[in-house]
Amino acid sequence: MKHVVDLSWKENMAFETVQDGHPLVIDAGAESGGNDLGFRPKKLMLTALAGCTGLDVISILKKMKVVPEAFRVIVEGDVTDEHPKKYVEMKVIYEFKGQDLPLAKLQKAVGLSEEKYCGVSAVYKDALKLSSEIRVIE
Amino acid sequence: MKHVVDLSWKENMAFETVQDGHPLVIDAGAESGGNDLGFRPKKLMLTALAGCTGLDVISILKKMKVVPEAFRVIVEGDVTDEHPKKYVEMKVIYEFKGQDLPLAKLQKAVGLSEEKYCGVSAVYKDALKLSSEIRVIE
Repeated sequence: MKHVVDLSWKENMAFETVQDGHPLVIDAGAESGGNDLGFRPKKLMLTALAGCTGLDVISILKKMKVVPEAFRVIVEGDVTDEHPKKYVEMKVIYEFKGQDLPLAKLQKAVGLSEEKYCGVSAVYKDALKLSSEIRVIE
Repeated sequence: MKHVVDLSWKENMAFETVQDGHPLVIDAGAESGGNDLGFRPKKLMLTALAGCTGLDVISILKKMKVVPEAFRVIVEGDVTDEHPKKYVEMKVIYEFKGQDLPLAKLQKAVGLSEEKYCGVSAVYKDALKLSSEIRVIE
């Protein structure tokens, strides 16, 4: 299957696209000559990973009848100082909140995303160091 | 330097984050049990690439005093059918519109992004097949 993204330049450093009906604006910050009208493109790599694995995990937990009170996916990316300024390491933190959450099931859901389902981490792990951590808050 | 993205689960398959002051919603489509409230995460990998190289190119052309009438970056990604459904190939199409645009300068700007500046393609090309094409429309 083929996915296509079509991004159009608007003005100065701002670009715009519509994906699945949702508009998205990309821009640089003032420090890079932009007007901060939208997202920094590189960080969208982290958003893609957080969203991909987050969707996997919540979908698998739903099938396991496990419903956390709250769930966050934090992705930290280490960027090189030299050009090309790229991510060389990422860490994914899965933070679940709830009473008596079954840790083994949380680990199973995260493991299935990491090893079987998440197409974003499957690409990144061929190019950089990827690690993860599960945190549970009562 | 470290970048951080913090994505919070809202309801069903929808997640939300705020990046550099801009809110972003992730959701699955109805065919995957979601409510289509926002972006599909995997496609944000394509948006990240289009935005990163688009910003590079427009910024380099500005320094070269080259201003196209219009400029689009189209990224096509080929996804596997089997899990993990991941991109194995991407093609970046740079489409410039304008009268008498200097092709050598367009090629130079694209080449500098691909070889020196774009931190997104620098990661992807270690994990998948990446190609590009320049189109000029008068």
